Amino acid sequence: METYELVKTKATAAKKAAAELAVTGTAVKNKALVAMAQALLDRQQEILQANAEDMRQAADKGMKASMLDRLKLTEQRIASMAEGLEQVAVLPDPVGTVVGGSRLANGMTVTKVRVPLGVIGIIYEARPNVTADAAGLCLKSGNAVILKGGSEAMQSNKVIASVLSEAAEKAGIPQGAVQFIDTSDRQAVTDLIHMNGLVDVVIPRGGAGLIKAVVMNATVPVIETGAGVCHTFVDASADVQMAMDIAYNAKVQRPSVCNAMETLLVHKDIAGKFLPPMLEKYFAAGVEIRGDERVQAFSGQVLPAVEEDWSTEYGDLRLSVKVVDSLQEALAHIAAYSTGHSECIVTSDYANARQFQLRVDAAAVYVNASTRFTDGFEFGFGAEIGISTQKLHARGPMALPELTSTKYLIDGSGQVRG
Amino acid sequence: METYELVKTKATAAKKAAAELAVTGTAVKNKALVAMAQALLDRQQEILQANAEDMRQAADKGMKASMLDRLKLTEQRIASMAEGLEQVAVLPDPVGTVVGGSRLANGMTVTKVRVPLGVIGIIYEARPNVTADAAGLCLKSGNAVILKGGSEAMQSNKVIASVLSEAAEKAGIPQGAVQFIDTSDRQAVTDLIHMNGLVDVVIPRGGAGLIKAVVMNATVPVIETGAGVCHTFVDASADVQMAMDIAYNAKVQRPSVCNAMETLLVHKDIAGKFLPPMLEKYFAAGVEIRGDERVQAFSGQVLPAVEEDWSTEYGDLRLSVKVVDSLQEALAHIAAYSTGHSECIVTSDYANARQFQLRVDAAAVYVNASTRFTDGFEFGFGAEIGISTQKLHARGPMALPELTSTKYLIDGSGQVRG
Repeated sequence: METYELVKTKATAAKKAAAELAVTGTAVKNKALVAMAQALLDRQQEILQANAEDMRQAADKGMKASMLDRLKLTEQRIASMAEGLEQVAVLPDPVGTVVGGSRLANGMTVTKVRVPLGVIGIIYEARPNVTADAAGLCLKSGNAVILKGGSEAMQSNKVIASVLSEAAEKAGIPQGAVQFIDTSDRQAVTDLIHMNGLVDVVIPRGGAGLIKAVVMNATVPVIETGAGVCHTFVDASADVQMAMDIAYNAKVQRPSVCNAMETLLVHKDIAGKFLPPMLEKYFAAGVEIRGDERVQAFSGQVLPAVEEDWSTEYGDLRLSVKVVDSLQEALAHIAAYSTGHSECIVTSDYANARQFQLRVDAAAVYVNASTRFTDGFEFGFGAEIGISTQKLHARGPMALPELTSTKYLIDGSGQVRG
Repeated sequence: METYELVKTKATAAKKAAAELAVTGTAVKNKALVAMAQALLDRQQEILQANAEDMRQAADKGMKASMLDRLKLTEQRIASMAEGLEQVAVLPDPVGTVVGGSRLANGMTVTKVRVPLGVIGIIYEARPNVTADAAGLCLKSGNAVILKGGSEAMQSNKVIASVLSEAAEKAGIPQGAVQFIDTSDRQAVTDLIHMNGLVDVVIPRGGAGLIKAVVMNATVPVIETGAGVCHTFVDASADVQMAMDIAYNAKVQRPSVCNAMETLLVHKDIAGKFLPPMLEKYFAAGVEIRGDERVQAFSGQVLPAVEEDWSTEYGDLRLSVKVVDSLQEALAHIAAYSTGHSECIVTSDYANARQFQLRVDAAAVYVNASTRFTDGFEFGFGAEIGISTQKLHARGPMALPELTSTKYLIDGSGQVRG
């Protein structure tokens, strides 16, 4: 089949399934999620075999070690995919939640309720666990899903998707609710993001290149899960030890993720006390520091920062550091270079804390806590499909409610408009 | 200036203004709205003169009467624009509303608050009143606005926009918060919908052609305010008089608007009682009926409906009518042809009412009331920027809260992630 026909066939089947899935009861969905978890465990040998095949091909093509690690499945990783599905089973079902309403003067009642989005396209890269995570979250929120994984994980994703969709259907989920696009033709992404009328939203999950390509080319609505150039600003009044703990955690604990810090801003009045021990701690952890001139003055080991550094999401143990004269300068720097993900001030000053939270335009604005907390699980949502850095529909960690839309139900007794 | 440079300059100015407007207090915004209303009244001669110029040019180009009527401004219409701004001034400010939050186990508090979207582009056609309506709603919700009106209303819009923006700035609104694109070059729309990073969302308001062009070409997020192929289904158990009142109102009261009915579905068991008097009433009102064979059997005046009729938004006194065998057939017809705007069942049967509201996938699903009520003012929102027919971000009538995003404020005492 031509790629376009393949994608359209799957999208049509997904749309058909979505209409039924939207009215499928919570109990059936929960039973299916548990069955899907069990099926992953029952069929883990098939999954591991397929993954071994992907790993072999990737190694042959010279994939680097960090990418190979993302691709690799183990018994433990399959178990944690299964556990994830079981956790989604026990979360509240957002569908049908009444989020507002009123009785109007003419006696009509208006009730706003959550309904599924419909058909969600997920476009993702190397990690095969996204197949299970996304399928589980979409199913629980009543959405049909079309999964388009990276070609490097094709065999793994294909087996996982088929295990999940078989188990779901056996448990009473409408046929076709979990679709997997089993072609490596890159045209499939282009086709998927143009399926207006069949696909309600696409969510790209992966590197900046993938996300940009989807955002710039899709005609279907997109939720952008964008890059994180996250800042920590150490205010003049900060507790030095607290600032060190937060700035260390935000950079070092897991540098590859989007909520890790990339730029540290330090008020000039605290730089002398804060920077020497902080830099030492970073160097001990193997962090490469790129600083402006005032930072360089504190250590010969600091490399000079260039303009590009301020807008770079390193995703590794590199950090840009700048000394600023004021809260205002910190705010201006953040406004200029932030990607609107997570920003933090460490301060003891009430007014500055308030000003920072008011002024900074980002999904998550922290006072005295590490930006690393921007995460659906950490925020207590019980799940996460991604972190939105756009302002439309959802901003910040997206969980089940963010995978729904709403509709208005109007009940009357013959009202007409005058 | 080149069109691209013009649009970019205005978008850059809007973004700068948006950062300040986002933190401008409600009292200042309200004072500005009242001042803007007064300025429209004070300077109505200028506005009427500019409008007379637009009208003269449009007439010369042979614009048809209904379009000329949309373009025309009168003292009364200017007064109602001013009144609209005053009404927005007294509505609650959505910015800063706390919409959720919790205290986490580690002691951090997470608070989700409404914030402005940022910069909103409004792309609209003939009606100059949209200039004032959109500017008022965007300002109240803390957003900078870039207005791109139709070229036929250029002089009117330009004067209105400049009257509004002068009055707003004099009242303390940041300079540049109301931008108007004063070129008729069609390239301006293309440029505006590609201003990623400067423009946060565009909302097209106008005909199907405009909306489709924006949806299919924009890289900036779009809120689609789409067409309404609205259905009324008269169930077997319907009260005949109530069904006639609702079906008449939905078609005849104002046929040009998107919440007017385009297709009437009638259960076969009530067709004999309902259709003869209903058709008579429609014919008396000058409604042209296009029916299937079973409808044609009731009157020689019924024209045969063709496939295209079922998906056409007539926007005038034409109506397609079909007799169906069951609720299921009505639901299937609606699923096939609905644009997801407003759908209605007239019934006395509780289970059918519930089934209809559960199954129909539309922004507004009515039981026993006219689809004509789908409107921000009728729903009690006090305002309306448009009616969204997409599922992302907002669905149905959009008022002030729909012009906002949210951000998470996190307050801690040194928490780091383990």
